[in-house]
Amino acid sequence: MTEASQTLRASGRAADALRPVRITRHYTRHAEGSVLIEFGGTKVLCTASVEEKVPPHKRGSGEGWVTAEYGMLPRATHTRSDREAAKGKQSGRTQEIQRLIGRSLRCVFDLKLLGERTIALDCDVIQADGGTRTAAITGAYVAAADAVSWLLAQGKISASPIRQAVAAISVGIVEGTPLLDLEYTEDSACDTDMNVVMTADGGFVELQGTAEGVAFSRVEMNALLDLAEKGIGELLAAQKAALSS
Amino acid sequence: MTEASQTLRASGRAADALRPVRITRHYTRHAEGSVLIEFGGTKVLCTASVEEKVPPHKRGSGEGWVTAEYGMLPRATHTRSDREAAKGKQSGRTQEIQRLIGRSLRCVFDLKLLGERTIALDCDVIQADGGTRTAAITGAYVAAADAVSWLLAQGKISASPIRQAVAAISVGIVEGTPLLDLEYTEDSACDTDMNVVMTADGGFVELQGTAEGVAFSRVEMNALLDLAEKGIGELLAAQKAALSS
Amino acid sequence: MTEASQTLRASGRAADALRPVRITRHYTRHAEGSVLIEFGGTKVLCTASVEEKVPPHKRGSGEGWVTAEYGMLPRATHTRSDREAAKGKQSGRTQEIQRLIGRSLRCVFDLKLLGERTIALDCDVIQADGGTRTAAITGAYVAAADAVSWLLAQGKISASPIRQAVAAISVGIVEGTPLLDLEYTEDSACDTDMNVVMTADGGFVELQGTAEGVAFSRVEMNALLDLAEKGIGELLAAQKAALSS
Amino acid sequence: MTEASQTLRASGRAADALRPVRITRHYTRHAEGSVLIEFGGTKVLCTASVEEKVPPHKRGSGEGWVTAEYGMLPRATHTRSDREAAKGKQSGRTQEIQRLIGRSLRCVFDLKLLGERTIALDCDVIQADGGTRTAAITGAYVAAADAVSWLLAQGKISASPIRQAVAAISVGIVEGTPLLDLEYTEDSACDTDMNVVMTADGGFVELQGTAEGVAFSRVEMNALLDLAEKGIGELLAAQKAALSS
Amino acid sequence: MTEASQTLRASGRAADALRPVRITRHYTRHAEGSVLIEFGGTKVLCTASVEEKVPPHKRGSGEGWVTAEYGMLPRATHTRSDREAAKGKQSGRTQEIQRLIGRSLRCVFDLKLLGERTIALDCDVIQADGGTRTAAITGAYVAAADAVSWLLAQGKISASPIRQAVAAISVGIVEGTPLLDLEYTEDSACDTDMNVVMTADGGFVELQGTAEGVAFSRVEMNALLDLAEKGIGELLAAQKAALSS
Amino acid sequence: MTEASQTLRASGRAADALRPVRITRHYTRHAEGSVLIEFGGTKVLCTASVEEKVPPHKRGSGEGWVTAEYGMLPRATHTRSDREAAKGKQSGRTQEIQRLIGRSLRCVFDLKLLGERTIALDCDVIQADGGTRTAAITGAYVAAADAVSWLLAQGKISASPIRQAVAAISVGIVEGTPLLDLEYTEDSACDTDMNVVMTADGGFVELQGTAEGVAFSRVEMNALLDLAEKGIGELLAAQKAALSS
Repeated sequence: MTEASQTLRASGRAADALRPVRITRHYTRHAEGSVLIEFGGTKVLCTASVEEKVPPHKRGSGEGWVTAEYGMLPRATHTRSDREAAKGKQSGRTQEIQRLIGRSLRCVFDLKLLGERTIALDCDVIQADGGTRTAAITGAYVAAADAVSWLLAQGKISASPIRQAVAAISVGIVEGTPLLDLEYTEDSACDTDMNVVMTADGGFVELQGTAEGVAFSRVEMNALLDLAEKGIGELLAAQKAALSS
Repeated sequence: MTEASQTLRASGRAADALRPVRITRHYTRHAEGSVLIEFGGTKVLCTASVEEKVPPHKRGSGEGWVTAEYGMLPRATHTRSDREAAKGKQSGRTQEIQRLIGRSLRCVFDLKLLGERTIALDCDVIQADGGTRTAAITGAYVAAADAVSWLLAQGKISASPIRQAVAAISVGIVEGTPLLDLEYTEDSACDTDMNVVMTADGGFVELQGTAEGVAFSRVEMNALLDLAEKGIGELLAAQKAALSS
Repeated sequence: MTEASQTLRASGRAADALRPVRITRHYTRHAEGSVLIEFGGTKVLCTASVEEKVPPHKRGSGEGWVTAEYGMLPRATHTRSDREAAKGKQSGRTQEIQRLIGRSLRCVFDLKLLGERTIALDCDVIQADGGTRTAAITGAYVAAADAVSWLLAQGKISASPIRQAVAAISVGIVEGTPLLDLEYTEDSACDTDMNVVMTADGGFVELQGTAEGVAFSRVEMNALLDLAEKGIGELLAAQKAALSS
Repeated sequence: MTEASQTLRASGRAADALRPVRITRHYTRHAEGSVLIEFGGTKVLCTASVEEKVPPHKRGSGEGWVTAEYGMLPRATHTRSDREAAKGKQSGRTQEIQRLIGRSLRCVFDLKLLGERTIALDCDVIQADGGTRTAAITGAYVAAADAVSWLLAQGKISASPIRQAVAAISVGIVEGTPLLDLEYTEDSACDTDMNVVMTADGGFVELQGTAEGVAFSRVEMNALLDLAEKGIGELLAAQKAALSS
Repeated sequence: MTEASQTLRASGRAADALRPVRITRHYTRHAEGSVLIEFGGTKVLCTASVEEKVPPHKRGSGEGWVTAEYGMLPRATHTRSDREAAKGKQSGRTQEIQRLIGRSLRCVFDLKLLGERTIALDCDVIQADGGTRTAAITGAYVAAADAVSWLLAQGKISASPIRQAVAAISVGIVEGTPLLDLEYTEDSACDTDMNVVMTADGGFVELQGTAEGVAFSRVEMNALLDLAEKGIGELLAAQKAALSS
Repeated sequence: MTEASQTLRASGRAADALRPVRITRHYTRHAEGSVLIEFGGTKVLCTASVEEKVPPHKRGSGEGWVTAEYGMLPRATHTRSDREAAKGKQSGRTQEIQRLIGRSLRCVFDLKLLGERTIALDCDVIQADGGTRTAAITGAYVAAADAVSWLLAQGKISASPIRQAVAAISVGIVEGTPLLDLEYTEDSACDTDMNVVMTADGGFVELQGTAEGVAFSRVEMNALLDLAEKGIGELLAAQKAALSS
């Protein structure tokens, strides 16, 4: 990492630094888990709702389900985007993201221990500044953990179905320099953009790398994964701190 | 108002008292106006977006437009409700409310002075505890005022198109007693429910009264309007205080 | 009421006069209740269909349901409007109106006495000249009454679930004068427009007042309610006459 | 035709007899052409609307367009059918019928003489008792003729674009007997059902025959076409009489 | 048939000649019946899927169902047409065709012998050059026959529910000459277009004739039916040959 | 790679072997590029259509666009899946895949050299046996190359906008063994599944790795990427051979 690379971030942030992370539990009142997560200017409200039903393919299986939906308030972004409910359909991007969140969270759940019920994770972006999907996954884990605590406290389950924590971060190459946790202006300018989802024991759950314009090499990919591992380590610590407070 | 009526509110609130009102301006970063309004446990994020275009029926008219959309996060409510974007359509209730907000705000705007542009008001309920539509109108006015200040500051308009303030409150009859500003449990139990929208000079903009089960008399209606006038006076003062801070 | 106000109605009608009201029962053959109601040039076909099923939230409750749908033939209006079935969705206005009709009729029904079945009211505007929703409510009541008579005659119920009659009328202020039963040209020109739904015992069921441009005062509102009470009295008499013929 | 076949019709009608045909012009007020057509218990309101625009594929062509839409009021039928606007789409049957009506009418129009404008034909079934699509075509022709007279009277066109009249009837084989103008109970019981659209000069415009269960022979088809020709001759006379009154 | 008429076909084909017909069974691997049928340049993949369920109106009836869906790959045609899945609805033309295929095939099935299961026929046009619906019906019959053989081989039924074969062809009048099996350029130019569906015993199942511009006479219709009978005879032979190979 | 791993593939295929690849150009007649690509039992028809228009965000830019749509015939799969056109929407999976194909192809295009026109790639799965999205990308490249040759031959462009070739393959870990080019049974059983898109010069364009159940390590990921590089090298050779034939 050269000095040049460090001065290139508008915020003065180092290339391998996360933006300030803030996790606020019990942000709203009704949900079994409700977390506002902030990665700098990105703010996502993640709620976890326990529902005593499962989708058709799980009925009678004795297993539960974990699912996610994602939305963006129309003026979370620099210019107003159309409301998906008014347009009558979710964009391909929205569906892609909510499927990613769902898979990431299911990966750390033992669905048998959950019992035949659903944890529905709603991730709604209040303010967007890059990295909304990674913030959503990281916050949804905390909300899901609170919902599991509620289930345990209610006596509905006797052992936690959560096997380990999961968190996510974006990395990318901007003007030749690998950067951790891209904010919006960096994301728009980057050549390669990668979203990485990892578990507490260091395994990969999801890896989605996209070249914008120029293909990336294996060396670059390795540099990005190094950055991601560092960032996710810090996020896992932030989750742990929030849950123990 | 008998003493009995005062003890009936779970919160200890007097029959003619508003819940605590909190108006937070600049709640999010990107919108020209962004206001979080709270009526007790009801929290609505109201953003005002300036768009340099108008709907077809206003094109070439030299006049602008003010419009509103309303949404509810899936877990803003006691039990999770389906995401309208996922279902592919807005409910009749949602459409009814957003049409009400739009008419209420247009009523205090001089569309000629606004010029051929649109102010889009997005009212998204973060947490619901009754009165979401009246909180939305009251907060949307503040967001719209901030967007107008932005237009003036940018030199895009030279005079404010806002003729006066507008605010809204719900009133209802619960077990025979007229109450101001119904919270969720009161709203569910009420015989008559009325939403009142008024301007700063004391005129009515919208009046929507509905009997649930038992029809209401003119005497009852007058008692409700007295309560509403009182409450709206306080809301107008709260808007003013917020805008001058 | 000045003389001026009386000459202002194109039709020569007095400010406090209804248009000629005509109620034709058994207008079509298949429905359990089928009524063509005319308020002057406004013609609405109201059918009541008995269905031996209830919506999910009433299943197993022992109670019935009363619901309404509203439509407008494409060329019921001065210029052709798009067919909602072809567009693939009902407008916000349509949904607002059909919800209003449904609530108004449910308010006079004892759903327990109806038994676990539905009365579906279809209100289709054949020709529009203002006041279609109030004509729809007034006609739907007669159709519902015929459907109830059919249920009694069939021995499906032994007591009528209808508690009392319900009717509706529009009132408004046009160039400063309160008018009863607005026709289309008056409705387009009015400053304030109010739809009032009342029961036979003089209670209000629904009250929807909207200022177009200028807010209205409490004095004006009272003048409008006086007019509405007079008009609804006449409509209740017309319903009674029709049902006893 | 045996005597047996004549006694088989519930109505006492002869096998080769139409039901009473009634054509009421100027049925509603706003449309350029508005016709209620009745084939016995089948009642269809056909309106013709002149619109000064054409669909994209005709823009700039100097030619006009004739199009049709078809609908059925929910309780036009024996049991209530779902409202297509509420379901959010038109059924395959509805689309099939409105495409048939459109083609049938376009076939007798000189689109060049019509000029770059559209005649939109709305055929809405008020009461159904079999043969709604053939009644719709027969009535739509009269409505279209009235709209053309209006265009001529307004000086918008100087020569009629209508080349000749067009009418339609259903025929079918019920228990081995060919019948003209099937009513609902006959339509449900028939083995073969054919809709025939013909012009005043005796040519076929559309022919749609369907075997229900048992295929039909060429001899049977010829018997059906003989019946259809007879019936259409009478319908053309009824159209002519209506238009000259 | 004049010599002139024979030279008018671009392909050098005689007026009463089919295009080369090719029927390839087992074209894809998973379906119970899978047939690629080619009428010259028109290629339709017809699959028959056995599903152990029936639509609601057949549940508990002991009878099965035969249904069809039709689609066209976006670039099956000369210029790309929009993908119906992306547009969110099937066109009226698509629905008309798939209803026709379904009725045609059901007509030769004994639904009681099929038992309470469904044969779903999917007809997807890989390449279009006129006559896609008639090729689809002809090919769907072969696919359905293969699915029935599979059911017999599996021991799920003991007798074939197919009563006889069914096939379809288009005929039309181009510049005054009746032609068999129209290809795309002929179809676009034709005055009259007729689709004929017949069974092996020579009965008509469906007959859909449409005049484009000029109405057609009974003499012309008879000439077209003669051509169709000849063509369908050849198609039935081709089906038989394919099924016995 | 142990011997055990080699015997584990049902097909007898080596762990690092592709299934037989077949690329058939000019598969259908109308498209500017039309390719049937087969990866063993997976068959995808990829057509490239040149359209002389661009989406709104490219209008007036002088640049072109490359876009993709993906579909699956209902019985391409083991059991019939619902037709998306009939359901009225594309699944999240479909949208995810077509976005991936579009991005992958755009990455090797110089949109300026393409000029203000669109190449629309339609990838329709005729038969599915795992790896449909990677076959689609690999085949779409060949179809796009044919469309570019057509543009050059027509003189519409003077230099090829294609910078280099692109191809894609799936890799995964099944029972601990990394495998190349998963077929359906392997895909269902795998712990980790990765889709890799690479250019001819060895850069990554897209990388999408998903853990099913157990997270994967960096060592495993490297093994998978080695396999992918090998496979893509062979696919690039197959594309080249097909295009030079």
